[in-house]
Amino acid sequence: MSAHNTIAIIGGAGAMGGGLASAFLRAGRSVVIGSRDRARANAAASALAADTAHADVTGLSNLDAAKSAPEIVVLTVPYANHLNVLREIQPGLDNKILIDATVPLRPPKVARVQLPEKGSAAVEAQAFLGASVRVVSAFQNVSAEKLKTGAPNCDVLVAGDDVDARERVIALAQEAGMAAWHAGPLDNSAAAEALTSVLIHINKRYGATAGAGIRIVLD
Amino acid sequence: MSAHNTIAIIGGAGAMGGGLASAFLRAGRSVVIGSRDRARANAAASALAADTAHADVTGLSNLDAAKSAPEIVVLTVPYANHLNVLREIQPGLDNKILIDATVPLRPPKVARVQLPEKGSAAVEAQAFLGASVRVVSAFQNVSAEKLKTGAPNCDVLVAGDDVDARERVIALAQEAGMAAWHAGPLDNSAAAEALTSVLIHINKRYGATAGAGIRIVLD
Repeated sequence: MSAHNTIAIIGGAGAMGGGLASAFLRAGRSVVIGSRDRARANAAASALAADTAHADVTGLSNLDAAKSAPEIVVLTVPYANHLNVLREIQPGLDNKILIDATVPLRPPKVARVQLPEKGSAAVEAQAFLGASVRVVSAFQNVSAEKLKTGAPNCDVLVAGDDVDARERVIALAQEAGMAAWHAGPLDNSAAAEALTSVLIHINKRYGATAGAGIRIVLD
Repeated sequence: MSAHNTIAIIGGAGAMGGGLASAFLRAGRSVVIGSRDRARANAAASALAADTAHADVTGLSNLDAAKSAPEIVVLTVPYANHLNVLREIQPGLDNKILIDATVPLRPPKVARVQLPEKGSAAVEAQAFLGASVRVVSAFQNVSAEKLKTGAPNCDVLVAGDDVDARERVIALAQEAGMAAWHAGPLDNSAAAEALTSVLIHINKRYGATAGAGIRIVLD
């Protein structure tokens, strides 16, 4: 495994984590799947390896996965576990970029926007982790189905207070075949997080089987 | 003036109100411009009449404008005036649809999402007005510039708790040349309102002179 190239995906055994893993593997990245259940992480890694030619993918505990990535850790967990998992992986995040793709859905009303008190899950993550971790918000509006099948027909909004970290996340999304946009400071993650519930509503109402998304039009 | 056809635009002397007025006039609607300053309302109406062939447009006070529209009143005012103007027009809104296009921007940081405590301006409007008015949120992500020049290259998210009212607003947007989508309950207005700050950021960063917008892609 070429460690400098490695992306850790915390919650990587879930559907969204698997979709992102597929996309990064296709782009030639090494991926470490993190799960609270090491056996689930291994099973997800094996399935990804079987699906993707020359895939360099392994499974670890969440904390070990976070530690294994030199620069970029992706977090995509059910919102109910968000804070607990942040607490679990914090020792592995120092001086890294955490891409928070977690959406604050509150079942059963997942098609209704219910943002947290601080405004967004990403802002909560930054508040918990402090200044030694650069939190960047991305990928909330790309469906797992689309990620599994090549270049998704939708755009990615990338929000974060550190412009250099945002640039790196935009570059990573582009590597993986997505169009990605500077969406402003981390507070602006609220837009992408809220939009997910709108897209879930649209999926149901209009029957978008692969998952609706957005495109930004400039003029 | 064919009164049954009339749309009132509260805050219609502003840029966004003028853009919406142009679009509705081109669609053959009668428009009444409301302003706190009757003279400004008249001046805006005269300018619109000069710009648009056969335009049936007049200017009135905010309250008289609201009263003059039999079914649909549009509200687009600076967020700082939102509650005051709601108080002013409330006597003219009973049993009507209020389309709230107001975005809770807080100058000078208009490219930063700063949603109100209740989650969105539209939810605040509904809470203030009570059940006798059906509040529908729309048009936050369409620039005034695009509205002035025919069918805008962007989509409209339409959120509201009353599905029939939402349908009427979608039909109105379509009349005016826009693609409009059911975006779910009024709480989902938070997505469109937050997205406006993201689009302002994108306008600055990428130089979108006519104003960036979004398109929904289904698959």
